[in-house]
Amino acid sequence: MELKELDRVLPEEIEKRSFELITKELGEKVLDPEYELVIKRVIHTTADFDYADNLVFSPHAVSKGIRALKEGAHIITDTNMGMAGINKGALKRNACSVSCFMADEDVAEYAKLHHTTRACASMDKAAGLSEDCIFAVGNAPTALVRLYELIKEEKIHPKLIIGVPVGFVNVVQSKEMIMSLPDIPYIVARGRKGGSNVAAAIVNALLYQI
Amino acid sequence: MELKELDRVLPEEIEKRSFELITKELGEKVLDPEYELVIKRVIHTTADFDYADNLVFSPHAVSKGIRALKEGAHIITDTNMGMAGINKGALKRNACSVSCFMADEDVAEYAKLHHTTRACASMDKAAGLSEDCIFAVGNAPTALVRLYELIKEEKIHPKLIIGVPVGFVNVVQSKEMIMSLPDIPYIVARGRKGGSNVAAAIVNALLYQI
Repeated sequence: MELKELDRVLPEEIEKRSFELITKELGEKVLDPEYELVIKRVIHTTADFDYADNLVFSPHAVSKGIRALKEGAHIITDTNMGMAGINKGALKRNACSVSCFMADEDVAEYAKLHHTTRACASMDKAAGLSEDCIFAVGNAPTALVRLYELIKEEKIHPKLIIGVPVGFVNVVQSKEMIMSLPDIPYIVARGRKGGSNVAAAIVNALLYQI
Repeated sequence: MELKELDRVLPEEIEKRSFELITKELGEKVLDPEYELVIKRVIHTTADFDYADNLVFSPHAVSKGIRALKEGAHIITDTNMGMAGINKGALKRNACSVSCFMADEDVAEYAKLHHTTRACASMDKAAGLSEDCIFAVGNAPTALVRLYELIKEEKIHPKLIIGVPVGFVNVVQSKEMIMSLPDIPYIVARGRKGGSNVAAAIVNALLYQI
């Protein structure tokens, strides 16, 4: 293979070209205009067209998420990887912030003391904050389960839950639990798929629409 | 959905159970024992069984990668997200280190001056290091293309290239270029799929075998 076989696309054009190719391959599949840019960005991030069918949105989840970000939301992730994937320039322009408590010493101690996961303990730490947050969960189903419990106990009122943990144990159930909540805006990747990259892509897709 | 429907699995058992489920679902598919733990960890990270067929290994790429890590390799990633996903405890135990140059000021200046991408400029910066590195590329095909050029020019001799960028423009070609190199150990996700999460998962799968 020679270099000449590469597509000659300017770096700043690559994303545009990618989205054109995604649109082309989606063919006649109709995406809801409110969800379209989120779905396409997740496909762009994963090259996995399953997300055209997997992503489930509560009513007006995208516009509610965008509104929260416009007002300067605090985003909580369940991995440093998810936090690393969120566009810091776009966050800053909107006076938003992001935290991941997973590596915090108090979280490790709390998890040990309560025989729970650090992901759960991270959600408890977030519940202690004075503000309502956006949660971007791309890894730990136990984080979603704990969010569900905290919401049921009325200890927490997330502005949006991005529920896209990936995996084989309790992942599917944890997502169904979030989708059973009547009054919480959510964007969930139904099924096993997801990831910290997907969580970050969804946050970025919302930020880029501001 | 009630909490009782969750599988009652201890946190420390979740990964074991997940790998058992992956093994079960792979069914009669035979994986090369040298590659098996890498392939299964990528499936564990993505819940995407396509990786049972996508991942391509140069001869003894896994054992060569493990040997390099045992000797305390320096790993270069093309995203902070990929760097964030690598297990720092496992790195430290093996006296390994990881760098991502993408956000470095000198890289931004070099890219601007040479009308190239920061990913390319990052690879040039890595080529200036005194040691041979492991490259874990999960995002930028231009990073792989630049590695190919630097190898052809004999300016760089990677100990291993993990070539798993994701996307729609030049991604497939960049991976084929790496696979055309006769003497460089590589692990590549053939096709469009991959990601920083996949790159980190492969590094971790090697570290966990030490």
